[in-house]
Amino acid sequence: MASDAVEVTGQEGLAAALASVAAEVESTLDDVLPAPEGAEARLAEAMRYATLGGGKRLRAFLVVESAALFRVDRRCAARVAAAVEMLHAYSLVHDDLPAMDDDDLRRGKPSTHRAFDEPTAILAGDALQARAFEVLAEPDTHSNPEARCELVAALGHASGARGMAGGQMIDMLAEGAVLTVDQIVRLQALKTGRLLQFSAEAGAILGRAPAPQRLLLAAYGRDFGAAFQIADDLLDATGTTAETGKTAGKDAAAGKATLVGVLGEERARAQAQALATQAAAHLDGFGERAHLLRALAHYAVSRRQ
Amino acid sequence: MASDAVEVTGQEGLAAALASVAAEVESTLDDVLPAPEGAEARLAEAMRYATLGGGKRLRAFLVVESAALFRVDRRCAARVAAAVEMLHAYSLVHDDLPAMDDDDLRRGKPSTHRAFDEPTAILAGDALQARAFEVLAEPDTHSNPEARCELVAALGHASGARGMAGGQMIDMLAEGAVLTVDQIVRLQALKTGRLLQFSAEAGAILGRAPAPQRLLLAAYGRDFGAAFQIADDLLDATGTTAETGKTAGKDAAAGKATLVGVLGEERARAQAQALATQAAAHLDGFGERAHLLRALAHYAVSRRQ
Repeated sequence: MASDAVEVTGQEGLAAALASVAAEVESTLDDVLPAPEGAEARLAEAMRYATLGGGKRLRAFLVVESAALFRVDRRCAARVAAAVEMLHAYSLVHDDLPAMDDDDLRRGKPSTHRAFDEPTAILAGDALQARAFEVLAEPDTHSNPEARCELVAALGHASGARGMAGGQMIDMLAEGAVLTVDQIVRLQALKTGRLLQFSAEAGAILGRAPAPQRLLLAAYGRDFGAAFQIADDLLDATGTTAETGKTAGKDAAAGKATLVGVLGEERARAQAQALATQAAAHLDGFGERAHLLRALAHYAVSRRQ
Repeated sequence: MASDAVEVTGQEGLAAALASVAAEVESTLDDVLPAPEGAEARLAEAMRYATLGGGKRLRAFLVVESAALFRVDRRCAARVAAAVEMLHAYSLVHDDLPAMDDDDLRRGKPSTHRAFDEPTAILAGDALQARAFEVLAEPDTHSNPEARCELVAALGHASGARGMAGGQMIDMLAEGAVLTVDQIVRLQALKTGRLLQFSAEAGAILGRAPAPQRLLLAAYGRDFGAAFQIADDLLDATGTTAETGKTAGKDAAAGKATLVGVLGEERARAQAQALATQAAAHLDGFGERAHLLRALAHYAVSRRQ
């Protein structure tokens, strides 16, 4: 399916590069996740279940490709990519909980609290978050501790009350309410945008890039995130459970506020295209080295899963 | 009540020092916690509810007093103390959830999911954890980024799958089961010991102390933590809800494994005393400067709340 979508956009090499990064981050995750040992083994099992073997690894790809712009050691980039994927995995585990979105399916298999139980899922999410920050702070992630601190602080901000968690709070409060376009845009910027923005920015932090380049990558990540979210909502509205691996139509059923719901399918699709084009344009100054990141922006809005 | 207990141990100045650190960390927490603003204001309100205005601030006291041994800038120590208290507060919020210990009372007031609701409590815990790591990584915490990275990595380890979260996992799995003394000791070392150990060690990290001094403070924190946990279990077994601000007798009711349950009250009390004495002995080399940390070890096992 991924290769179909990539062919549609005419972006050669993207599917292979995505698969390559996914394999690389899978291996790094296997290294940095705790082994299921001791009386607490069930916790490590749940952390591994929630994190390994699934997803497109878009956040990892953003980290690895943005880091490649600055010729960062690929093992360092893979560790940051693994940290972001652990952070992302924890957010999915907690979002799926009965008290939150109450979802039984994730990536085509039972969500973590269904495969294990609620307390284990809560703790696995908590421990994944802790491990993500620990990995960023460890010396193997970068020889310069200033870079490691910047990564920790930026990820903390992106995932906290003024980022992902704040966005999820708005999302929970907004269920059944009618939001304006501006309110939905901000909700999604916090809920999914900040972490994608961090992922793109992380390469510049690892590469000790000057501020203008860091800002351009942040802008790319922000616009890519907005485009990606609309595309995700379009898939939820029009896709099937078999295609997406998630319960189809759940946003509408839950009364979730999405731009697709407010703007309609056609205008939402046009908006996603415009944002993807704008995201790619931020990378003009990086030349040919950024062609995979540009291709990713277009792929995000043409994908079918 | 606290002053009574302190008089019993004959440790002058401890009550005043505890109150002073509590006030200082309260002010720092007020600074570093997000303001309730925007559509996500409810999240910041819950984070503040869960963190401000309560508790003995023992972890903050360990950070501030261990840092004072090395003449660390008190504002830096207060930021680390605030981070540990946010981390501790998140763990209490999640432990109290219906799917976990299902507790309606915390520090004499409704637990966070009772005062707000379950999704808000889950997210507030998540965002408190993120903010704790962010604060540690920010430049105001220490001029040396290596020190900040060590703090992040050590707190991540202490609170993750091989620390606090792992201990809580064992605790959930052990409900109703019969554990050996060794199993209970390990459970409690992970669940509460690691974070207390980190708190005592943090001063040595901030002070760039040589390894032997860091190890002594870690050993102090470990033994203090073990003594403190037994004392806590004794209070649960023998105290009232009014005295402790928590639901009394809940450990026995929940079939929780405690040393008090296995050893009996008298032997458990003797064990706590021995650990407190051992904790204080680790500080012999620090002389008079460590008198408050020594006093704290004895206070922990003589307190009545």
